[in-house]
Formats: sequence, structure tokens, C-alpha cells
Amino acid sequence: MSLIDTDILNRPIGHLLIDQLDAVCKVFERHLESDDDGVNDLCSHIERYRGKMLRPSLVILSSLAVSGSDSSDDLNERHQIVAAVVEMIHMATLVHDDILDESEVRRGGATINSLNGNEVAVMLGDYLISKAFHLCSTMGDPSINLALGEVTNTLCEGEVIQLQKRHDLDIDESVYLDVVGRKTGSLIGACCHMGAVLGNGNEEHCSALKMFGEEMGIAFQITDDVLDLFGETAVTGKTVGRDLDLGKMTLPLIRLRNSLDSIDRERFDLVVHSRDREGLQKFLDTSSALDSTMQTARDIVVRAKSRLSILPEGPALELLLDLSDRVLIRHA
Amino acid sequence: MSLIDTDILNRPIGHLLIDQLDAVCKVFERHLESDDDGVNDLCSHIERYRGKMLRPSLVILSSLAVSGSDSSDDLNERHQIVAAVVEMIHMATLVHDDILDESEVRRGGATINSLNGNEVAVMLGDYLISKAFHLCSTMGDPSINLALGEVTNTLCEGEVIQLQKRHDLDIDESVYLDVVGRKTGSLIGACCHMGAVLGNGNEEHCSALKMFGEEMGIAFQITDDVLDLFGETAVTGKTVGRDLDLGKMTLPLIRLRNSLDSIDRERFDLVVHSRDREGLQKFLDTSSALDSTMQTARDIVVRAKSRLSILPEGPALELLLDLSDRVLIRHA
Repeated sequence: MSLIDTDILNRPIGHLLIDQLDAVCKVFERHLESDDDGVNDLCSHIERYRGKMLRPSLVILSSLAVSGSDSSDDLNERHQIVAAVVEMIHMATLVHDDILDESEVRRGGATINSLNGNEVAVMLGDYLISKAFHLCSTMGDPSINLALGEVTNTLCEGEVIQLQKRHDLDIDESVYLDVVGRKTGSLIGACCHMGAVLGNGNEEHCSALKMFGEEMGIAFQITDDVLDLFGETAVTGKTVGRDLDLGKMTLPLIRLRNSLDSIDRERFDLVVHSRDREGLQKFLDTSSALDSTMQTARDIVVRAKSRLSILPEGPALELLLDLSDRVLIRHA
Repeated sequence: MSLIDTDILNRPIGHLLIDQLDAVCKVFERHLESDDDGVNDLCSHIERYRGKMLRPSLVILSSLAVSGSDSSDDLNERHQIVAAVVEMIHMATLVHDDILDESEVRRGGATINSLNGNEVAVMLGDYLISKAFHLCSTMGDPSINLALGEVTNTLCEGEVIQLQKRHDLDIDESVYLDVVGRKTGSLIGACCHMGAVLGNGNEEHCSALKMFGEEMGIAFQITDDVLDLFGETAVTGKTVGRDLDLGKMTLPLIRLRNSLDSIDRERFDLVVHSRDREGLQKFLDTSSALDSTMQTARDIVVRAKSRLSILPEGPALELLLDLSDRVLIRHA
């Protein structure tokens, strides 16, 4: 998905967003700069990871949405800093995730771990995390630091739990949803929440946007997990089929397995253990697991959007609603 | 080295320190606790990494040293929080360093990466970093957050530069000292500095303690690098000889190589490339590189101690000076 397409560009709010994202990029690049050239070379390589800028967009739009504003007069440097911080955290998770997933391709380019080794990827991810917290601290607002710390705690817990459940074919939907909520929902929820707080939203509005973001993040991840099964590297821009290779049970696989009788379940487990993609395809062809998974993602987006019914109308709200629909049709 | 030995325990300041470190441990453990048992299991495994508690000790002692105090009335929860934060950052670097170094043993126990795989080690290190920043944020003091962010930025840069210089046999002493200053000196310097700031030290005292810590850290790392060449796992508690295996040129090796004529230098390079420890031993037997390296470490400690001559006398200052001597005789 390209987040900013012609449809969005034709709206004044789209222009405003583009200008803001440009400013966010400048803050981002300026703050990553080191006095060491080698560090700078690595950072410029991962600039390409910064694809959709979904998270910075959510910070900006959520801030405007709480007041119904469509004016950049209601935005300032604090918005750009928070937006750059969340993007840095997101990129750090991508760099470290690629080590976890042994991925070789990300957004159409070679991953840091495949180019420079896991060691460099570990340290570069740490550098991004450190720079994110440092940039956040320059705002001098302890509540934002605390909020960021809380979300990264949750995010890391999600990753650790997911790792520990690898190769456990027997996990149920609630564990999957818990992991996805922590791993993906928490940061996207925090983007919307922090944006709303910066826009001086009232408590009800801030918490509605937080829930909207968390649910949008969960729907995003479910779609991602479906795409991992059936996408192609040329389309998704990253190594596909990694979940099966790594023994990660995602929602479509959990649903499929739960629908099988004990004999078929044994066959299915063999297919998963042997990373047999063709065998898996046959199982999926005769199952409704995929449709039902995408239906769940759609239902979650409907619920997420309903959270925002209490917000004043305005172009930022409209764009937020549109973006939440787009998480379902990415890469299509 | 055991930091707190009988000599220190016989002093009242030693008792005070032990009590404080106990309180620091409680803050540390309480803050690492997660609602997920798997995360808690991992955290309790790495509790054993928390060996010497050098960094928390430096926070406490530096705070007392600026006023010459020997009373726990001059210490409060903020000291314990900062001490726990720096220890978390230190432990995160150990967990991630062990991935970088492919180490299997740390403080006499198996490393997280060798037990649970690199993936878990990556995420556990991230969890520690995140928890450290979060704990720091609970103090509500943006200047401490900013100071922590600065030191972790520097620390990560040091690690990245070191990685990029691997297998570069031609690096000179200034590069080595720059890396060691960033990687080890910065955090130890920050411990002393943050302690001094918490103790309401004046600017001159705070900056003297910062330099003392940075130099002590550099001497500490030089000694560590010498021990890596000649220590034994049973004594050092960690995998030894890793620097040679990983192509890391440390100060004794740089000095040795610089002392050789071009023919011997070629032979030396072969020895390093082939990780031939016996061959290296022969080179070192006929060289003064090791003595001269340890002399440099001693000189740095003398310089570090001289920084503190402007501080008021007192038992905390005395203990700081003693501890700086001990970095030279660790594991002996």
C-alpha cells in the first residue's frame, strides 16, 4: 500500500500531511546523525525502511482530529518530534525483527542483518532505540517519556512471548491476539493517543483514539500474517513464508488447525513441522480459515472506526477512517 | 574481583553501601517484573549477571563524595532508581554483547544467547533497555532522561565503530581509546556524574567525577582486554580468548604489532588471522606490549584519581579511590 495515494493527495488534508511528514523526516535525519561516518552509512541504508510513515501520520492526524482542525497552525515541533520518535522505535523493531526472522529482504532491499551480519543489526537497532528515547527527552515532558517507556515495555513483552510460543502448534486465538496486541497494537495505539494528547484532546477522545489505534494495529498485523502466507516478495517487499519457516502459528493457521479432526490435525502438524508450503496450500484450499481470518480483520476495523464516532467531524477524522480501511487492502 | 570485600565491609561506609545496594536490587527486581511468566523466567536467569554492582556503587558513592557525607540521610529513592537504571543498561549491553561476541559463558553461567538463542537475547536486551528508560522516566526529571539518552547514544556508537573495525589489524591506539571511551567509559562516567548531580554537587565537582568515571572505565576495559588474552574461564567467569577469535585488535595487540618490523608484522598478522593462540603467546613472550599496556592502565587510574583532589575528604571519596585501584587487579 502506498499510504498517500492520488485520492488523498487531492484533499487539502493530504497536502498538509505531506508537508508535515517532510518536516518529520528532517527531524528524524538530523537526530540520527552521528560524528562517526560508519554509523551514518548504516543509518542512511535503513532510511529506505521508512516506507509508509503510517505511525507519524497517525500522530499528526489524531492531533487534528480531536478538535476537528484542518490547519497546520494547530501543529508544532512537538508533533514532529513525537512522530519521528515513534518512527525510530518502529524502525528499531524492524531491524531487530529481521534478526529474529532471519529475513533477507525488507521493503525491496537487503536487510541490515543479511548485509552486515546480526551483530551490526543488533547494535543499529539499539542505536535507534537510544536515539528515540533521547529525542523524546529533548521535549522536557516527563509524561511523554513515561508513555513511550510503557509502550516499548509492552512491545518487547509481546516479542518475547511470541518467541517462546514458536513451534507451539497448540496455541489458541487469545494468545495470538494478546501477542499481536502487544507487538503491533500497542505502538499504533500510542501514536494515536500521543497525537490526541498533543492536540489537547479530552480524556474520552484520547482514549477513543488509543483504542482505535490498537485495534487498527491488530487488524494490520492479522492482514500482514495472511500476506506472509500468500504474498510474493515482489509485491510485499519482504521475505515471505517466514512465519511457517519459523514455526509461528498465525491466526489463519490456528483457525485451520482448530477446524480439523484429530487425524487431519496430525497430518497438518507434519506439514507445519516440515515447512511444506504445498501441503499447507492444499489444507487451506479446502478450508474457510483464510476467509474467516480476513472477516475478523474487517470486523476489528469496523469496531475501531466506531470508537471515533464521538469525535467532531473534520477532514483529519475522515482520513483516519480511510486509513483504517486501507490496512485491509495493503499490497493488493 | 569482588567489589565488596572484607576490607570494605570493615568500614562503616561499606555497610552503608551494602544496604543501599540491597535497596537498589529491590527497585531493580520490582521494575523488571512482567505479567508474563516467560518474561519473568528470563529476567530471573540474568539476575546472575548482576555481579559486582560497580555502576550502582559509583552512583551512591559519587553522590556522597561531593559533600563529604557518610550518612544515608543524604540518599533517597532517586539514588536507588538511577542506580537500578544504570545497572539495567549495563545488563542490556552484556546480553547484547554476548550475541556480538558469540559468548557461551558469562559470570560462570550459560549466556542467554547460548541457552535460548540469539533471538531471545535480542529481545531480552531490548526489554532491559526499555525498562531502564521507563524506570528513569518515573522520576519525572527530564534532565536525567536526557543524560541517560546521551550516554546510551554514545555507548551504541562505540559498539558500532568497534564492530566496523573488526579484522582491521591496522587500527591505531587513538581509535581503540575512542571506542573504549564510548563503549565503557561513557556509562561509568555517567554513573559518577549522575550521582554527583543527585548529591547537589557544584559544576566543578560533577565534572571532575564524570572524568574520573570515564577514565576509570577506560582503565577497566584495558584490563579486561588483557584478561581476555590470558584469563581462564574459571577465573574471569566468562569465555576468554574471544577478542582474538573475533578479530578484535585490543591495546596489547596494537602495541605488539606496532613494535614489529615488516617481516615479523606479516607473521603476526597470519597468527591473528588464523586465531593461533600459541603463536600469539610466543610473540607476547618476547615483547613488552603487555607490561606497557598495564602501565598505561595504571597511569590512567592515577590521572583519574587526581581529578578528585578537589573534592572534600570523606569515606565515600576514599572508597571511590580504592575502587579505581581495584579495576587493575580484578580476577587476580
